[in-house]
Amino acid sequence: MLEELRAIVGAAHVLQGESLAPLLGDWRGRYHGQALAAVRPDSPAAVAQVVRACARHGAPLVPQGGNTGLCGGATPGDARAIVLLTTRLNRVRDIDTANDTITVEAGCLLKSVQDAAQAAGRLFPLSLAAEGSCTIGGNLATNAGGTQVLRYGNTRDLALGLEVVTPQGEIWHGLRGLRKDNTGYCLRDIYIGSEGTLGIITAATLKLYPQPRAQRTALLALPSLMAAVAVLERARAGFGAGLTAFELMAAITLQAVTHYFPEQRLPFAPDTAPWYALLEFSDSEDEAHAQQRLETVLGAALEAGEAQDAAVAGSVAQSRAFWHLRESIPLAEFRMGKAIKHDIGVPVSRIAAFVETTNAALQAAFPGVRHIIFGHLGDGNLHYNVAPAVGQGEAELLALQPQVYDIVHGSVMAHGGSIAAEHGVGQLKRDLLPRYKDAVEMDLMRRLKAALDPDGLMNPGKVLA
Amino acid sequence: MLEELRAIVGAAHVLQGESLAPLLGDWRGRYHGQALAAVRPDSPAAVAQVVRACARHGAPLVPQGGNTGLCGGATPGDARAIVLLTTRLNRVRDIDTANDTITVEAGCLLKSVQDAAQAAGRLFPLSLAAEGSCTIGGNLATNAGGTQVLRYGNTRDLALGLEVVTPQGEIWHGLRGLRKDNTGYCLRDIYIGSEGTLGIITAATLKLYPQPRAQRTALLALPSLMAAVAVLERARAGFGAGLTAFELMAAITLQAVTHYFPEQRLPFAPDTAPWYALLEFSDSEDEAHAQQRLETVLGAALEAGEAQDAAVAGSVAQSRAFWHLRESIPLAEFRMGKAIKHDIGVPVSRIAAFVETTNAALQAAFPGVRHIIFGHLGDGNLHYNVAPAVGQGEAELLALQPQVYDIVHGSVMAHGGSIAAEHGVGQLKRDLLPRYKDAVEMDLMRRLKAALDPDGLMNPGKVLA
Repeated sequence: MLEELRAIVGAAHVLQGESLAPLLGDWRGRYHGQALAAVRPDSPAAVAQVVRACARHGAPLVPQGGNTGLCGGATPGDARAIVLLTTRLNRVRDIDTANDTITVEAGCLLKSVQDAAQAAGRLFPLSLAAEGSCTIGGNLATNAGGTQVLRYGNTRDLALGLEVVTPQGEIWHGLRGLRKDNTGYCLRDIYIGSEGTLGIITAATLKLYPQPRAQRTALLALPSLMAAVAVLERARAGFGAGLTAFELMAAITLQAVTHYFPEQRLPFAPDTAPWYALLEFSDSEDEAHAQQRLETVLGAALEAGEAQDAAVAGSVAQSRAFWHLRESIPLAEFRMGKAIKHDIGVPVSRIAAFVETTNAALQAAFPGVRHIIFGHLGDGNLHYNVAPAVGQGEAELLALQPQVYDIVHGSVMAHGGSIAAEHGVGQLKRDLLPRYKDAVEMDLMRRLKAALDPDGLMNPGKVLA
Repeated sequence: MLEELRAIVGAAHVLQGESLAPLLGDWRGRYHGQALAAVRPDSPAAVAQVVRACARHGAPLVPQGGNTGLCGGATPGDARAIVLLTTRLNRVRDIDTANDTITVEAGCLLKSVQDAAQAAGRLFPLSLAAEGSCTIGGNLATNAGGTQVLRYGNTRDLALGLEVVTPQGEIWHGLRGLRKDNTGYCLRDIYIGSEGTLGIITAATLKLYPQPRAQRTALLALPSLMAAVAVLERARAGFGAGLTAFELMAAITLQAVTHYFPEQRLPFAPDTAPWYALLEFSDSEDEAHAQQRLETVLGAALEAGEAQDAAVAGSVAQSRAFWHLRESIPLAEFRMGKAIKHDIGVPVSRIAAFVETTNAALQAAFPGVRHIIFGHLGDGNLHYNVAPAVGQGEAELLALQPQVYDIVHGSVMAHGGSIAAEHGVGQLKRDLLPRYKDAVEMDLMRRLKAALDPDGLMNPGKVLA
């Protein structure tokens, strides 16, 4: 098989030994797998040949992009597996500004897609922490979320067309740049978010948007979660689609950032409020109008007592500093001791009740554990993490992970939520799905998998057991 | 079987004879089918029982909502078929304003969903000509489009969760009101747009939006299609997400409206321009700001020569009059003699080239036929209809339908487009699909159908042969 693969992609692009090793684990060091080799095809036709070769030999195929995933979805598990690297599928094939679309190959870095759009005077709005190293193929495979979802949607909402290599090694030429197309079943949305288990996305046609003409960032100090939801509702009504981010941060998260990174400063006294929010307003007019709108909406929130204080970034540098506070939370959290992480979603209307009851249940079971809560309030998506109590060791906490999972995920379900909001399932949550999802839905998913990948060679052991 | 069905839904809700007859054809009079009976279940559990009864007896099931479809998707074709009416599944189950969601049953009229949202101070933005008589279930089954797609997307983009009865008579409880949920394959988007061929949607959780605080409508006279696209691009950049409609109309369509309905008036001389557009701007601020923005953006378009003239509605009544002009086009078209209709989509960047080359090809083949072109320019979606030449009879033209289809659909494909943009496939375009779609895609669609509906009893003969 290796000979066949070398003939397809060239010997230099079949990796084994030392060059294979770094691809066998995830960046968080949580998963360690094995594989026979990795291959780097440079065209959809070569991907199709690789898929057919693997199918003939019964070898599992594991697609991998930037390998920045959080759920082990790109880590191979089988000694016969072939890792399919999308690195060389990295062309921007087309930008059509009059149609507001860009067509890119799966191995393009998300940052490269953003940059190509910007160079054409457009915005590609998908934005997340790993954007400098993750690939758009990985974003599509996991239906990645990020900070701009409340305005522009998840990756699925940004995709119009796909090119996919099927498990049979055929190419579906579905790169349509159409806002309306009802010629049959929506195959596109099945592949998006299927984490490489149904086929390999090799390219996509994505939506572009006009660049905002002005942007304003504000940091808000909030007396309660209920107040945060009230400000969000006010901002939605007042800014309309101009509200492009609404990030929630518990006081402990910003206290940790300023403690571990003392060069970063909060614009408030450190104990001003129990909750903070980073709000971003994007305007299609000009700087003066953006400023006036922000003052109007925030002024009303302050007057209503929904916000205790508001700091508006006076410069691009200060806006970056506000975002930097938000983005530093995971690093500060790491310094506090490894946490038990949850990527949960609930309806925005249930956020406050969810946090209150889940915090209480955890404190009752494990007194003193710390609640590291932050995330995308506008989408009802929280990174609800549980850090060791002061004096508690990492290992001591991590031993409790199953019980902590039970409490948090049980509470998520009681509030009509999702146990995997934006990071996907991968290996991490595969065995939780049957417990928390509708049995009919699990059966439908298995039917789909069997229909599209009957030999079960596409990224086996991910999403479904 | 009829006894079983009566036991499930009650004898009064099993229709035959005279009460069945009107359900056996479409409203345009294009399709006439047959069926054994129609049933009106009033709960998802009853729908599931009906599905199981039909499965036991091998009877095809044809869901029907408002029966306003344009492609024969709701017309039964088999004497053993059971028509499943969603009429009694008509409850608004929940409105959650803090989460901006509404949960409704499939038989709710679209207008009822809009009204329920409005009563709660929110907007449900799906809007189309049949909204007073079509059902949200039909909108979901066909992934309906309409006039607000350039801002809010198609029906699929407005749905968060579904409740579906599978062909096995099980209920998938998928009514999630979540903006982010990556717990497996996106079943939701397979059912949406599948026209009842994979299961029966019984309820949906849909997105709501803030109501605009001010709205402005303008009618523009445009020197060319290229100019229309330029104004669209300018409006997108200048209004951002405030641009909620951009409807294109060829001069002949408005001339026909004012000819057949002389009480309607154009705000311009009748031969001002070859093209017109209806532009709608929705603002999250106030009337004064909306007016100022409109003047700024339209002023620039006039100055650049992209628009020859612009009439801004000065009142709600005038705005309605402008929309009434647009909505009267199909009626005026009907008076001109039955046309050969096309519901096509192409990238916005290809619209002008598509119209120019297709018009020329049709004139070369059938001199004198008239091009009744109007539609949703913002989505690249045109109703590109071909009316008889002056003096040509309807029958004479309709006999040429296969050749006209060939020219128009061939041109659509050459321009990277779709032959069924917003009306769906139904029976009308079923046999065209294999000709114009990727063979791999057709194969994937057949695999899906076989996997989810192995007995082929769900709306047979629609979408796929």
